Amino acid sequence: MASEETQAPFSAEQFFATQPPPPTLDEDVARVRQFIKRHTEANQKIVLVTSGGTTVPLELNVVRFLDNFSAGTRGATSAEYFLKAGYAVIFMHRQFSLQPFSRHYSHSTHPFLDFLDVDEHEVPARIDVKSSERPQLLSVLSQYKQAHEGGTLHTLTFVTVNDYLWLLRALSQELYVCGRNVLFYLAAAVSDFFLPRQKMSEHKIQSGKGSLHIEMDQVPKILKPLVSEWTREGFIVSFKLETDHNLLIPKARGALARYGHQVVIGNNLHRRKFEVVFVAPAAVNSGTRPTPGQEPSEVDPKDFVETWLRIDLAKDPHKEIEEDIVAELVRRHQLWASAA
Amino acid sequence: MASEETQAPFSAEQFFATQPPPPTLDEDVARVRQFIKRHTEANQKIVLVTSGGTTVPLELNVVRFLDNFSAGTRGATSAEYFLKAGYAVIFMHRQFSLQPFSRHYSHSTHPFLDFLDVDEHEVPARIDVKSSERPQLLSVLSQYKQAHEGGTLHTLTFVTVNDYLWLLRALSQELYVCGRNVLFYLAAAVSDFFLPRQKMSEHKIQSGKGSLHIEMDQVPKILKPLVSEWTREGFIVSFKLETDHNLLIPKARGALARYGHQVVIGNNLHRRKFEVVFVAPAAVNSGTRPTPGQEPSEVDPKDFVETWLRIDLAKDPHKEIEEDIVAELVRRHQLWASAA
Repeated sequence: MASEETQAPFSAEQFFATQPPPPTLDEDVARVRQFIKRHTEANQKIVLVTSGGTTVPLELNVVRFLDNFSAGTRGATSAEYFLKAGYAVIFMHRQFSLQPFSRHYSHSTHPFLDFLDVDEHEVPARIDVKSSERPQLLSVLSQYKQAHEGGTLHTLTFVTVNDYLWLLRALSQELYVCGRNVLFYLAAAVSDFFLPRQKMSEHKIQSGKGSLHIEMDQVPKILKPLVSEWTREGFIVSFKLETDHNLLIPKARGALARYGHQVVIGNNLHRRKFEVVFVAPAAVNSGTRPTPGQEPSEVDPKDFVETWLRIDLAKDPHKEIEEDIVAELVRRHQLWASAA
Repeated sequence: MASEETQAPFSAEQFFATQPPPPTLDEDVARVRQFIKRHTEANQKIVLVTSGGTTVPLELNVVRFLDNFSAGTRGATSAEYFLKAGYAVIFMHRQFSLQPFSRHYSHSTHPFLDFLDVDEHEVPARIDVKSSERPQLLSVLSQYKQAHEGGTLHTLTFVTVNDYLWLLRALSQELYVCGRNVLFYLAAAVSDFFLPRQKMSEHKIQSGKGSLHIEMDQVPKILKPLVSEWTREGFIVSFKLETDHNLLIPKARGALARYGHQVVIGNNLHRRKFEVVFVAPAAVNSGTRPTPGQEPSEVDPKDFVETWLRIDLAKDPHKEIEEDIVAELVRRHQLWASAA
């Protein structure tokens, strides 16, 4: 289904010059700026977590869209562990994807209405939480209140890949002031393809005319300018999700060689709950950033270090692999920040 | 983007002969059969509500898929009003789309964690509902408990358009036994296109090879066999969602003429919260079903009656148009059932 035809993909500059920004961009950025200012002044580390899938609308009046599989579990879970580790968290997620704290109470798998009881004997009637659910709810609730009262969690949303790219650029430029104290945790499942505004149909595509043909352009490789221009000193973690296990390491290495950032976390769609691999340039562990703009051909595979993280869900079914992922990243980020 | 090329679309028979059923089909149907049996014996009317969008996976190991815009608001809201009207409700919805009752507590717009307080003075700590939220929660909770204790709501889920079509066929065949006592409320946003299993790529489509080309086949027109074969006596309501207002009535009339069912509810994407139009064959109002198989060309536009339903959200911001939609359908279904 991927065509053989090659076509010069949009560069990041061409993308931003031709595709319209989301209407709320300025407000969103102003709010994030306040958040960054407050936590930078308090000398607190900041993490930008992106989470959930992006859509590619096929119509201006959107009825149909291409989407990427992602409930947002990785991002929402990791955000909680970053908060626990003392980070201020900017949680930039797909609208209606999972969020920290409320993720424990999915309306489909753990609906909160199920564990509320009504006590009609009191006037007015009292609503009680079933005792079996109370310990977990108390724990989630206290972390939730703490994050809200401490102002350590800032949430903003995107829907389309266009929204995502505009927001990521603007936020990374704002985060420039943090120097090495910022971590980028790019867990969102971003579409590789998009439909330029100029090619969209205005109204719902009508059926009844035979089969549907869609032709999409490549999304510009945003990590390139992110690493080498927008946020030169941030610690940048990207993700590779593959279904073909043999592609995991080569694709992760390829991304590192191309963009020169700090870590690629590789995960297989079917094993991602209990196994991930950190791929990183050997040099980053000692806090030396590779030269931006270095070409893939110049990088030797022995310059990369792979570290597998695995958990045993049979032994500990409540363990979340994000706890270990975040612990390892906090450690590496600390090295990176102190090596400045 | 819709091609000019025409291609013989799959018939429903061809579709079911070549596309695999969802793995849980038999279990799902067995549970619905029990539900139908119980409520038919109690002489209770049944409604099948379908809700939410369907996906079209592009890969066997699904990462990317085409989707239809739908949060499931119409279906979830209507299901509540059908329950209030005394119907037994089969709620067949897209996984993670809105559901009756919990829809009032979206994690994004009305998170329940926000209105819980912890009283640390008691041991063990007590969790309380903020007084401002208590009246609504008590009302929602009591309806929720009533539906669950009375066994009047049966929920099952789909994800892909393939799941949807297999389930709809199987459920409509089960509902045959209800004769005229069953209403079909087909509010799901079903894809017009699909990718036959035989054309899917096994693994994630790789980018980096230029632009993406997708070619999809037309989904068979399922209303045709639904109306004329699977459930000859059910009262069938389908929906048309358009963004081009001028297409609403012609498309609704076209569907009625083609399939010979009872009501098409037309709605404009941007006005659907406060305005819909019922389009129905004049004859249905007196309880006479049009001859199935009648061709569009044989139907005169004057044989159709249009009824607009509008609500004034400025006057009553809490009014839901689904209340009026369901009331009108309950009335029409009553006429239909008693005219047998």
